[in-house]
Amino acid sequence: MAGVLTQEELKKIDAYWRAANYLSVGQIYLYDNPLLKHPLDIKHVKPRLLGHWGTTPGLNFIYVHLNRVIKKYDLNMIYICGPGHGGPGMVANTFLEGTYSELYPDISQDEEGLKKLFKQFSFPGGIPSHAAPETPGSINEGGELGYSLAHAYGAVFDNPDLIAACVVGDGEAETGPLATAWHSNKFLNPAQDGAVLPILHLNGYKIAGPTVLARIDRSELESLFAGYGYKPYFVEGSEPEKMHRLMAETLDDVIGEIKLIQDEARLKDGARPQWPMIVLRTPKGWTGPKEVDGKKTEDFWRSHQVPLADLAEKKEHLKLLESWMKGYKPEELFGEGGEFKRELAELAPQGDRRMGANPHANGGLLLKDLRMPDFRDYALEVPKPGVVVAEATRVLGKFLRDIMKLNGQQKNFRAFGPDETASNRLSALFDVTNRAWMAQTITEDENLAPNGRVMEILSEHTCQGWLEGYLLTGRHGFFSTYEAFVHIVDSMFNQHAKWLKVTRDIPWRRPIASLNYLLTSHVWRQDHNGFSHQDPGFIDHVVNKKAEIVRVYLPPDANTLLSVADHCLRSRNYVNVIVAGKQPALQYLDMDAA
Amino acid sequence: MAGVLTQEELKKIDAYWRAANYLSVGQIYLYDNPLLKHPLDIKHVKPRLLGHWGTTPGLNFIYVHLNRVIKKYDLNMIYICGPGHGGPGMVANTFLEGTYSELYPDISQDEEGLKKLFKQFSFPGGIPSHAAPETPGSINEGGELGYSLAHAYGAVFDNPDLIAACVVGDGEAETGPLATAWHSNKFLNPAQDGAVLPILHLNGYKIAGPTVLARIDRSELESLFAGYGYKPYFVEGSEPEKMHRLMAETLDDVIGEIKLIQDEARLKDGARPQWPMIVLRTPKGWTGPKEVDGKKTEDFWRSHQVPLADLAEKKEHLKLLESWMKGYKPEELFGEGGEFKRELAELAPQGDRRMGANPHANGGLLLKDLRMPDFRDYALEVPKPGVVVAEATRVLGKFLRDIMKLNGQQKNFRAFGPDETASNRLSALFDVTNRAWMAQTITEDENLAPNGRVMEILSEHTCQGWLEGYLLTGRHGFFSTYEAFVHIVDSMFNQHAKWLKVTRDIPWRRPIASLNYLLTSHVWRQDHNGFSHQDPGFIDHVVNKKAEIVRVYLPPDANTLLSVADHCLRSRNYVNVIVAGKQPALQYLDMDAA
Ligand SMILES: Cc1ncc(C[n+]2csc(CCOP(=O)(O)OP(=O)(O)O)c2C)c(N)n1
Ligand SMILES: Cc1ncc(C[n+]2csc(CCOP(=O)(O)OP(=O)(O)O)c2C)c(N)n1
Repeated sequence: MAGVLTQEELKKIDAYWRAANYLSVGQIYLYDNPLLKHPLDIKHVKPRLLGHWGTTPGLNFIYVHLNRVIKKYDLNMIYICGPGHGGPGMVANTFLEGTYSELYPDISQDEEGLKKLFKQFSFPGGIPSHAAPETPGSINEGGELGYSLAHAYGAVFDNPDLIAACVVGDGEAETGPLATAWHSNKFLNPAQDGAVLPILHLNGYKIAGPTVLARIDRSELESLFAGYGYKPYFVEGSEPEKMHRLMAETLDDVIGEIKLIQDEARLKDGARPQWPMIVLRTPKGWTGPKEVDGKKTEDFWRSHQVPLADLAEKKEHLKLLESWMKGYKPEELFGEGGEFKRELAELAPQGDRRMGANPHANGGLLLKDLRMPDFRDYALEVPKPGVVVAEATRVLGKFLRDIMKLNGQQKNFRAFGPDETASNRLSALFDVTNRAWMAQTITEDENLAPNGRVMEILSEHTCQGWLEGYLLTGRHGFFSTYEAFVHIVDSMFNQHAKWLKVTRDIPWRRPIASLNYLLTSHVWRQDHNGFSHQDPGFIDHVVNKKAEIVRVYLPPDANTLLSVADHCLRSRNYVNVIVAGKQPALQYLDMDAA
Repeated sequence: MAGVLTQEELKKIDAYWRAANYLSVGQIYLYDNPLLKHPLDIKHVKPRLLGHWGTTPGLNFIYVHLNRVIKKYDLNMIYICGPGHGGPGMVANTFLEGTYSELYPDISQDEEGLKKLFKQFSFPGGIPSHAAPETPGSINEGGELGYSLAHAYGAVFDNPDLIAACVVGDGEAETGPLATAWHSNKFLNPAQDGAVLPILHLNGYKIAGPTVLARIDRSELESLFAGYGYKPYFVEGSEPEKMHRLMAETLDDVIGEIKLIQDEARLKDGARPQWPMIVLRTPKGWTGPKEVDGKKTEDFWRSHQVPLADLAEKKEHLKLLESWMKGYKPEELFGEGGEFKRELAELAPQGDRRMGANPHANGGLLLKDLRMPDFRDYALEVPKPGVVVAEATRVLGKFLRDIMKLNGQQKNFRAFGPDETASNRLSALFDVTNRAWMAQTITEDENLAPNGRVMEILSEHTCQGWLEGYLLTGRHGFFSTYEAFVHIVDSMFNQHAKWLKVTRDIPWRRPIASLNYLLTSHVWRQDHNGFSHQDPGFIDHVVNKKAEIVRVYLPPDANTLLSVADHCLRSRNYVNVIVAGKQPALQYLDMDAA
């Protein structure tokens, strides 16, 4: 056990963690007196207490340990924060590593900056409590739980050097989208894609009760992850020193294993590997108050949000807060002027290696235009309106095929959909690529390959999550699905549209490629499948969203569809919804008119 | 192996299965000549071929084997058909057991009836191709995949004698909602609830490619289900005789195990059992054409829908269809007049034991009114509008608490929600009941018990699915959640509203209790959580649905909320959406005015 960390390193890592915890608690509670230079008074405390403490110390613990391996192995890593309500932790860490002040110079690395840092959190005119677009390094808001793992996989497709460390809340793990996203490993090719390192944040509780995964036998938990195709490593405990050692050792092992898998796969094609993952079992609200008003708080759901409330009425709560914060020994962490001690700051990686500054988490920085053929070359000849019959999406398929081909070198274009690419008449894509598939194959299989660029899993949530992750890291793609079932992702659509809307006002967030939906099988052609398959309501749902973000297109024929698709694939920061027919239909416009 | 079935029984079971397969193919293809008394001619074939063959033989195989154990053990069982697109199989089986003709006398048990049975399927003015409300014995339409397992669990809560056999498509199993619904076993109490028997229908393919679960190692698959808390039994093969024996033997084992679990739990409380489940690995399109135009079809995705098409152009396809259907030896199955041979018909259970006639699948038949206290007794005194401040949902909580109490004997009322019951100020419920919890507990836990009636899992999909299953089997309940996140179930809401709409025109479907949403944290009170938590769009989404089904209520204060809740809980066949504040707010109306 002694091997990985020297006593000196351990002390520093622990101090760094305490600093992040200190800043997190400060954000939740303090309005003033950020270094606790004065005895804590109620006037230093925010009038309304908001935020989530419970998940935060675990997130901070992970962050500092990832920093260590990033430096040690010069890793290209991003941090996907499933329990995005742990926003204080993400803010604290990006502040400690320096990214925050670079992007928001007003939040400086001194006492004044600390005060502003604390005050702005969840405060009118300040920053949201979640890992929102405002948060450096974030591509997963995490307000609506369940999408972290799909985002992580989307981020690493075609990014062979990138590792997405993905913290999954054990509550979040109960959601449907998260529960199926584990299977994404059957679609990830270690030869050309990066790696996802899932870290199950098993802190035992959600808002007001235990989580399922925390209350099943260890053997069941192990089986579950083995069944999902992972090799779980357990890091369990509450005693900081032991936990630091264990986490450091485990991360070394796990990073070694990822490298090994990648090296082997890059030498020669092989079977799907069993990817490592970490189960981190720690107390919820770790290092927070053990009891409040005689009730168990640390290691319990009571620490989910703000463990100490009513500070104005309850003097002892104020005292408890003060001793809690002082327990982190801020004087060992920050200098007189509030600057983070240099020997601790040095633990963070440098420049773009900092997770808050990694350009993959600000995909617009990396975005390259698609190479596009001239869509007019695919035009259907329509000598006279209403005479030629054609399947519009089949015509589109050829255009998409050639886009796929033209960007085969750049590797920045993928198609996503729940097993309906062929049914939606886009099979031309299979002339130039395959479905991504890392699971077993048989000789009769068609169009399956580890390096396929058509992503098909029967989960609209996973498709959408992958695509979002892919776009947010600076690539291009589209989601093709039946109109009737796109409501399955109404909610994800909402969150992504909100994300885009917010980023418009964040100068350092560079525009990303639009999220393009290609919806087929529209109502008046759904006689086959019956009532459950009929639903044009998505358009209503969509136009509800701010028009500045969402565009809806209803191209009546093949040539209009081509021109619309061309436009949408070039656009930035929109959600484009294209509703098109896959059935034979009369064609109206020739290409000039379209 | 010889033990369970005599040779005679085996022959009959096989014949019954062939009959169901014959009728399924007939529905997909035939317009006339139902008994193939005449050489098959193109004029006997439907002009447009629709429907899904691939899943159907497996569904039929399961049905006849369930019939056997129902009779043998006098089981009270319903059949939840995950791959609802296998509608032809559900129709065929309910026809063979006699239910269909009882409910639809026009579809009689003779040649004329057979002809109509075939013709109506997926035909203008006929019946849908899915396990729709029109299908006897169905509570899961299955058009939108993913909800079967949650429906099954919802159906058996508080139904100690009921077994819901739940067929899960291996494609369906990739969806998020299905992937997390396996964990429902942590909320099912064998002492007071019935049992779910999941049968994974591992036929290897979805529309156009393999499924994930079919292409991982057997050991991974076993681990996955062990991890989900089940004991998997494998029934794998394609040779009918062997498969009949194996399935019969396995079902006997599995039913025995369920009984044992229940007997033990009903003697004394115990730990959560490991419930049995079946993995049925058979060829997709089993017994269908092996090859079509030289391409692998049986045991491949090509048999997903209509394996033989273009019968008018391709004479050999017509021939193939004829020999395929004749291969089932209809003359051994049906008499001259088209009646199902008596010695085969006898294999089906009688009366209400038939899965198509089980009243649990037509819940309105079993529905009992809730016992309701007078909501006026909970009224807040509002001497003058705009003076009293109160938390409306907290007032409602007391009313709900007493409804819970009054129906404690009837056991037909439950509350559902994703970990937010307390946060939504409904904690009064915990005065009289607990959260349902069959997983591990620790001494500090509060309000957790195996017989709890508050159902909390961090999956809006599972909550909604459970509630739907609970309502469809004739009970009452409500779903309480944050308004912002209810979009997660937009799509399930759609499907349920459609179901209700259709049942209005089906006289034998009796009205069921309404699906009641209680949405809290509405926009103007969401300063805490930020932008991701703001979304009033659900109301727009909802009112899009036919007004005859959906009612939206926006009670401005506590007393109006009480009166609205009272009304909604008494109503039938609606979806009621109640949007209410949980935060302190001014109260306007006294109870008379409300
Ligand atoms: C889809 C969704 N449903 C409900 C909520 C409300 N909610 C916020 S935090 C939380 C508990 C999260 O538990 P977990 O993922 O374990 O995070 P942690 O315990 O680490 O805070 C819930 C239910 C949500 N944010 N998203
Ligand atoms: C949520 C959803 N997405 C997509 C579809 C379109 N679809 C219909 S059947 C099918 C394949 C289903 O595969 P499986 O569940 O294995 O059923 P089976 O192979 O037995 O037909 C798909 C993707 C759907 N019905 N529901």
